[in-house]
Amino acid sequence: MLSSGWLDTRTLCLVLIILSPLSVAGLALLNTGLTRSRSAAHTITASLCIFAVAVISYTAVGFAFQGTAGGLQSVVVVAGKPWGWLATGTVFLRSVRFDASSSGLIALLQMSSVGLAGTIALGAGADRWRLSACAASTALLAAWTYPLFAHWAWAGGWLASLGVNYGIGTGFLDAGGSSCIQALGGLNALAIAWVLGPRRGKYSQNGMPAALPGHNVVFAMFGCLLAMIGWIALNAASAILFYQVDASRIVLVAINTILTCAASGLMTALVTNARLGKPDSSLIANGWMGGLAAGSAACAFVSPFSAIVIGVVAGTLVPIAVELFEAKFRVDDPGGAISSHGIGGLWGILALGLFPNWTSSAHPGQLLAQAIGLASLIGCILPMTYALNWLLNLVLPQRVAREGEWQGMDLHELGGGAYPEFVTRGDDR
Amino acid sequence: MLSSGWLDTRTLCLVLIILSPLSVAGLALLNTGLTRSRSAAHTITASLCIFAVAVISYTAVGFAFQGTAGGLQSVVVVAGKPWGWLATGTVFLRSVRFDASSSGLIALLQMSSVGLAGTIALGAGADRWRLSACAASTALLAAWTYPLFAHWAWAGGWLASLGVNYGIGTGFLDAGGSSCIQALGGLNALAIAWVLGPRRGKYSQNGMPAALPGHNVVFAMFGCLLAMIGWIALNAASAILFYQVDASRIVLVAINTILTCAASGLMTALVTNARLGKPDSSLIANGWMGGLAAGSAACAFVSPFSAIVIGVVAGTLVPIAVELFEAKFRVDDPGGAISSHGIGGLWGILALGLFPNWTSSAHPGQLLAQAIGLASLIGCILPMTYALNWLLNLVLPQRVAREGEWQGMDLHELGGGAYPEFVTRGDDR
Amino acid sequence: MLSSGWLDTRTLCLVLIILSPLSVAGLALLNTGLTRSRSAAHTITASLCIFAVAVISYTAVGFAFQGTAGGLQSVVVVAGKPWGWLATGTVFLRSVRFDASSSGLIALLQMSSVGLAGTIALGAGADRWRLSACAASTALLAAWTYPLFAHWAWAGGWLASLGVNYGIGTGFLDAGGSSCIQALGGLNALAIAWVLGPRRGKYSQNGMPAALPGHNVVFAMFGCLLAMIGWIALNAASAILFYQVDASRIVLVAINTILTCAASGLMTALVTNARLGKPDSSLIANGWMGGLAAGSAACAFVSPFSAIVIGVVAGTLVPIAVELFEAKFRVDDPGGAISSHGIGGLWGILALGLFPNWTSSAHPGQLLAQAIGLASLIGCILPMTYALNWLLNLVLPQRVAREGEWQGMDLHELGGGAYPEFVTRGDDR
Repeated sequence: MLSSGWLDTRTLCLVLIILSPLSVAGLALLNTGLTRSRSAAHTITASLCIFAVAVISYTAVGFAFQGTAGGLQSVVVVAGKPWGWLATGTVFLRSVRFDASSSGLIALLQMSSVGLAGTIALGAGADRWRLSACAASTALLAAWTYPLFAHWAWAGGWLASLGVNYGIGTGFLDAGGSSCIQALGGLNALAIAWVLGPRRGKYSQNGMPAALPGHNVVFAMFGCLLAMIGWIALNAASAILFYQVDASRIVLVAINTILTCAASGLMTALVTNARLGKPDSSLIANGWMGGLAAGSAACAFVSPFSAIVIGVVAGTLVPIAVELFEAKFRVDDPGGAISSHGIGGLWGILALGLFPNWTSSAHPGQLLAQAIGLASLIGCILPMTYALNWLLNLVLPQRVAREGEWQGMDLHELGGGAYPEFVTRGDDR
Repeated sequence: MLSSGWLDTRTLCLVLIILSPLSVAGLALLNTGLTRSRSAAHTITASLCIFAVAVISYTAVGFAFQGTAGGLQSVVVVAGKPWGWLATGTVFLRSVRFDASSSGLIALLQMSSVGLAGTIALGAGADRWRLSACAASTALLAAWTYPLFAHWAWAGGWLASLGVNYGIGTGFLDAGGSSCIQALGGLNALAIAWVLGPRRGKYSQNGMPAALPGHNVVFAMFGCLLAMIGWIALNAASAILFYQVDASRIVLVAINTILTCAASGLMTALVTNARLGKPDSSLIANGWMGGLAAGSAACAFVSPFSAIVIGVVAGTLVPIAVELFEAKFRVDDPGGAISSHGIGGLWGILALGLFPNWTSSAHPGQLLAQAIGLASLIGCILPMTYALNWLLNLVLPQRVAREGEWQGMDLHELGGGAYPEFVTRGDDR
Repeated sequence: MLSSGWLDTRTLCLVLIILSPLSVAGLALLNTGLTRSRSAAHTITASLCIFAVAVISYTAVGFAFQGTAGGLQSVVVVAGKPWGWLATGTVFLRSVRFDASSSGLIALLQMSSVGLAGTIALGAGADRWRLSACAASTALLAAWTYPLFAHWAWAGGWLASLGVNYGIGTGFLDAGGSSCIQALGGLNALAIAWVLGPRRGKYSQNGMPAALPGHNVVFAMFGCLLAMIGWIALNAASAILFYQVDASRIVLVAINTILTCAASGLMTALVTNARLGKPDSSLIANGWMGGLAAGSAACAFVSPFSAIVIGVVAGTLVPIAVELFEAKFRVDDPGGAISSHGIGGLWGILALGLFPNWTSSAHPGQLLAQAIGLASLIGCILPMTYALNWLLNLVLPQRVAREGEWQGMDLHELGGGAYPEFVTRGDDR
């Protein structure tokens, strides 16, 4: 019976965290569906390897750099105020007490989050990213780039302290990870796409992009449905652990998460119908994921109606971004990762500052705090992850050799295809 | 340690609700597996669109019409007693407080439920139902038909009040949705199949049905396993929120849900083996889903042994119903939605009145209440949903144009197939 | 807010149990992906049937034989001490009170566990195991073999009492099922593989094994990700219900489960890269599952670093075991079930005795208790399950007829293929 007026936050949070890897499973299936069949085994195998490397690297050192709010941190004084820029914890979770304290829950949740952030790049790198390079690049992301920004935003770092230190809104806010996971993952995907360059045959000599459709739309769309459940879990657990959102508010988080991705997916269907004459399945999948990415930041703070509006904007931005990156900037992104997670996430960061909050109306200070967070992602994290991947590329070439791309990643890197018994159309681009 | 003798109902309920979209994901995959490959992208894309339209329409106005028990309702006086027939709430969940009150949990749960009810029709309409018509028809279902019946049964409407008003049993009971979700969804699927008519090539000139097997049995069967988990969540959360079933009883709900679908699936294997010489995979999937649909109503009230018996009957009825609809009534239902959800659900409604209840033995009054609920579905909801879809068809033709069916839904409506690289057998029926 | 310092164990446990069938769904998809396309419908259909038979048999009589700690048991006196070897409960869960007592939760959890144990054998029997024999063999496992050993280890039987009775460590320990589910399931798979013999064409006349790759690597790998979530749930719920592990420790269980499979999967990638020149997708999937199987026993007791080491060893053992069974012992195991679940599980049993426990350092007594459990599995359970399946084979031939294997299981036993529209390569081995 529903007599008691409260929820057991810790229990709720732990269960949701255990559900959260569904987001990784859904995204892995989406990415696999959007690549070509001759890279399908490679994409799904790389997904598992990326997840595995991410959780181990993060456990080993990443969590020590990220830390938790109130923990030890390395501080720089800027304009008379302390800026926390990095935590100084211990390796292999040695300092974490497994006694239902927040730190244990955060460590577990962040294993999913960092796994998801790492998986995003695979959407952009598919069909040409070597498995060993995937692993090494993910290790850098999970051990350094992700924890660094997550410290700033979620562990008492300078972004979170903008309110306390300088009175800018209540500081940078991101309930579910539009910045730390989605935008960061999407910008990392952009860095990977730049380092790798486009697939052979993607652009003709005069620069026109060719359509290289994904090999399995069912995987892609089904992945979206699973990801939605994982996202609810991620958003809810992050909101509880990083912002002490009351457990009763989690109903709203779930409703908003569902409405944002639903509205975004439908909007992309309308936009693609208007631009291409028919709705496009792959882009609807991207729009759906873009809605999830955009909805995360504000999910705990806005009304269901605002959640729908955030989704409508995301569903409009994502297909336009896909077209811009592909045709204008000549960035080859088979899974649409940059547009859905990157652009979707960046929009989500701003959206939190634009819509009336649950407790107050929208105010310019919060929008400024959000804009500063967005600027730090584009101005600091993007160059850093590009530089790291560029350097890595010198040591360990990230792109597969020419004959590998011709053969297909599956045969070249794994020695066998995903579907050895099925007859596929010859494709020797 | 298991020292405390109680469960935190609200926390349990919220987590289960968050799990419940697995039922939609499972059913979407099942429906996709049971259509032809040239409609596969369309079916899974339509599943996402149906879910999206359903949750947005329901949030916008559906929940206002459904309401919750004890809320404002529009009443008609019949034989001196007030009959609640519709709630009069506010749009976009404005009246819902997100503070762990039941209304917030119900609103969230019903988003999954109405999404599932809408998805059912796609099984019957696959291979010929236009995407825009899917969306419009779902909007009618989610904004009007579903909330109307759900008000009657789950929100203090006249069916729920049959016991209080006229002493008929304890009023109409449906713990998990055999009526509101399954039978209603199945009858809606029947209306869609009638409005659309059979696929080209399904019936020969002398009326003999041709077998048009599904294109991916693995999707279908795997969808059944996922759906089972989602169903446990739906059944349990509905039982808690609509009947104040004690959380400790949820163990029984889960056991019964599993046993009913297991028994039903096995029974269908035996029945098809007896009738066709071999067990039939697609029909086993239908039988499994029929067991889930049938088990929902009684899951919180009967013993595990009774749950098995309910499943055995469902597993016998479903393959017979599939054959009757296909060969006798010439209703073309590629996914078996009418038989598994419609017939399964109707059987489940009655079954609750036939088996000894956990607290009392079976008594004729309860069976009468159940029969009245069943009659209102067939006598009132079926004509209504048929009329609505018939009218919609005048404004927005629901069936794809002739050349579209010849081309396949994927190419015609989405401009690309689900599996562009795989070689499929020519099929120009 | 996270003010309260405790978790609601019962609620947590119930929700995790409801999640646990994801392990079965994941393994079913893995097994299906690793068989040939002409057996795919058969494998996934058999998975549902095995799960259904397992839960019904277990409910009918299995749970009565397994019992719960402190319940009625049949005792043999050995060296002056009582050895519990079998419970004496009632059929169809009649003695279970559904009031949040442990017995109800255990009955529900064990339905997943026994379903999983039964599904393991399908990996070894794929491509040649008749559906009716699958069902009958599973009934024996779920009604007798599984409950027998589970009584010994998890319900106050002689293995659990080794500490109390003879001072051997704290008695045999297995937090999550490395023995009861994984090793037992893997040894049962070995018995099935022996009874069935290798597939036609697997071994040439001079005994060289041919590679018969699985037909869908994406299914296999995606199944691994889903299985991981189910495993966390299984491990956590078992640890709570059988060892009264405090709910706060569940964070550690989840972290360790993830780390062990991640480390194992990566290690297998490295080992196969070293031995075969390239990482092998199917073996990585086996390694991942082997890590899950190995990690279960110790997940609640060791540190994250130890969990990684357990995974590294499992990921080394599994590919070596696959090669040994295939090339040396000529056991044909398409899904790698014997190596991943059997060898992985046996290693997990020992591992618990080798690593420092959370509360104490590793001590030889515990290792001895674990070794006794391992010996009872190999010395008692393996012969028993082999004998039972050998006898069953006399009554109901377990292997498909020669022409059936030539035709493919799908056509022969189900009358239709999994993918009727796709063109596959001729394969008439």
